Amino acid sequence: MHFNYYMPTQVICGRDCVVGEGARLKALGTHALIVTGKSSAKNGALDDVLTALGQNGQRATVFDRVTPNPTVACVREGVALLVSAGADFVVAIGGGSPMDAAKAIATLCLQERSDEEIFAGGYEGTALPMAHVPTTAGTGSEVTPYAILTNDFKQTKTSITSPAMFPRLAFLDGVYMKDLPTMSAVNTAIDAFSHAVEGMLSRNATPMSDMLAKESLRILYPLLKKTAGKTTDDERDALLYASMLAGMTIAQSGTTAVHGMGYCLTYFHGVDHGRANGLLLGETLRLCREKKVAALEEVLSACGDTLEGVNATLDALLGRRESLTAAQIGAYAHASAQNKNIKKSAYEPTEAEIERIFRVSCPAETPEG
Amino acid sequence: MHFNYYMPTQVICGRDCVVGEGARLKALGTHALIVTGKSSAKNGALDDVLTALGQNGQRATVFDRVTPNPTVACVREGVALLVSAGADFVVAIGGGSPMDAAKAIATLCLQERSDEEIFAGGYEGTALPMAHVPTTAGTGSEVTPYAILTNDFKQTKTSITSPAMFPRLAFLDGVYMKDLPTMSAVNTAIDAFSHAVEGMLSRNATPMSDMLAKESLRILYPLLKKTAGKTTDDERDALLYASMLAGMTIAQSGTTAVHGMGYCLTYFHGVDHGRANGLLLGETLRLCREKKVAALEEVLSACGDTLEGVNATLDALLGRRESLTAAQIGAYAHASAQNKNIKKSAYEPTEAEIERIFRVSCPAETPEG
Repeated sequence: MHFNYYMPTQVICGRDCVVGEGARLKALGTHALIVTGKSSAKNGALDDVLTALGQNGQRATVFDRVTPNPTVACVREGVALLVSAGADFVVAIGGGSPMDAAKAIATLCLQERSDEEIFAGGYEGTALPMAHVPTTAGTGSEVTPYAILTNDFKQTKTSITSPAMFPRLAFLDGVYMKDLPTMSAVNTAIDAFSHAVEGMLSRNATPMSDMLAKESLRILYPLLKKTAGKTTDDERDALLYASMLAGMTIAQSGTTAVHGMGYCLTYFHGVDHGRANGLLLGETLRLCREKKVAALEEVLSACGDTLEGVNATLDALLGRRESLTAAQIGAYAHASAQNKNIKKSAYEPTEAEIERIFRVSCPAETPEG
Repeated sequence: MHFNYYMPTQVICGRDCVVGEGARLKALGTHALIVTGKSSAKNGALDDVLTALGQNGQRATVFDRVTPNPTVACVREGVALLVSAGADFVVAIGGGSPMDAAKAIATLCLQERSDEEIFAGGYEGTALPMAHVPTTAGTGSEVTPYAILTNDFKQTKTSITSPAMFPRLAFLDGVYMKDLPTMSAVNTAIDAFSHAVEGMLSRNATPMSDMLAKESLRILYPLLKKTAGKTTDDERDALLYASMLAGMTIAQSGTTAVHGMGYCLTYFHGVDHGRANGLLLGETLRLCREKKVAALEEVLSACGDTLEGVNATLDALLGRRESLTAAQIGAYAHASAQNKNIKKSAYEPTEAEIERIFRVSCPAETPEG
């Protein structure tokens, strides 16, 4: 038995926890930069954060210009606003994009880097303290030390990380997911599912990450299909909890081939991140079955379903699949094969196998199509 | 769903991790006070810690005078040595006693308290940084914010706590348990078992603490009986891991009636802490069955055994039970009923029920006895 485990984020979960336990924000600083997106701000979370900060006598500046798949330019804009406002801590509200942008802002405001150096790694363990309020059940970013940014130099998405990027606090309240559009609910749930599955199929899986992933799958998988319809309050709470467990999983194990390949679909075709993972997951699992990856059977056991059953569930949620041309498939397979996440897979697919996964997952248009 | 979760200790687990990953100690300070007991120092752990500190160019002062069930006087002695040596961080080596003494030393050296005030609570969140190296699989103290000290004012053992008492680092290497005397192996394993069980039977159980407890029981229970014989390297590693999971459990949930009662047996009769819990656990579980405590069935499911089976396992490990007189039973039941841990039980036993648990657990000598 050989592993490291680190998960320093304090999780506060429950209805109205942002206002009810908002006094915990006091220790973070005197002036918050609130990092969010235009739509993330409309579910009540921003009002609650402002109420909590007001009760604490803390000032707030709102940066609500984070867009999906945040760019370095977006992060720079946030840093500039933080500095000009004199903010000394960060509160993130939203899905993965605002949370990841917030982590990058909280880090880069203390560690200057040129655009070229941002993805070079080697970050020191300093960042402004952060509190995260997830409003989707998917990314798990509230409990990871990763910020995934659009990397135009390499035409993909790339993570930056340091231990200081773990948020100090994560407030989980499913109430903010009540009016989440169905497509977002489905895609984010698939993302969380992919985190738990990839965590178990990772070369870096540990006893702790496996425990977290199995508990996540046990709760999440039976709810996956339901995200396509109307969910209950309890189901949304459970989805948010399972998504956090999946985040804790990848905080230990990292993600693997599916994420490594999925970034191509997002970067070049604008496919939603969770959906991109979902598209690629089925054929990746089939390859794991062929290669007799033992962890696959544990994944299926935690889901309580067969490989065919899991793939049928994903197919039902994904609907009509995106198509890629043969040239695109070849190019993306070649690019993905260089991705560091590929090498973290319990079975590391060859470039030919990656090509096969793209081809089956996003089949070329048929003449009749 | 409503819970808080906090577990900031970084766990490093694996063979030779103290020396191999000892560079992680660098961030803690320049001069370590090593807190240990006379026997805890003889299993190789002290040598390894000194090697690691030496490689880092850090100084070390050894305080090896911690005895079982550490007293306030022992803690004061450690604080005095720390101050005179100019140490700025603490490394604990051993079972619960050195680890708990270390936490109290690391806290009280920054927060002065009179003997009377030590158990009054309200500690601020400051303590010197700590690394813990458990050499038994029982206490889980390496991942809790509690220090349990002998409380002569109340004639019991009482915990002190603050978030700063979570060790920064915990190094888990089962090699140090290789020559653990059988009685210590049995008693500490029972302690870990009691932590996992009580965590699930706590009013403060959370989804996270239940997940940790179930995983602990799944690994620990099949190994419980084996602790009475010769264990393998892998089994000792598994015991240490399960004990840590049980520590993470009570870091969330706290302990309950069994610990609350057990402190009387330790304080007045010198019964080993783990054994004291084991003696009282069986009848406590029977009471939970009578009172239809739902969590009991989950405990048994995680163990994969019946109530009768679990109690038979405990009976086999405990052997001949200590006897109490009727007067002692009455006095301890009265004292225990005031203990704060009692009120944390999912079913809070009445004083009469506590008396019954003591009577059945430590029966009076029969005339033939």
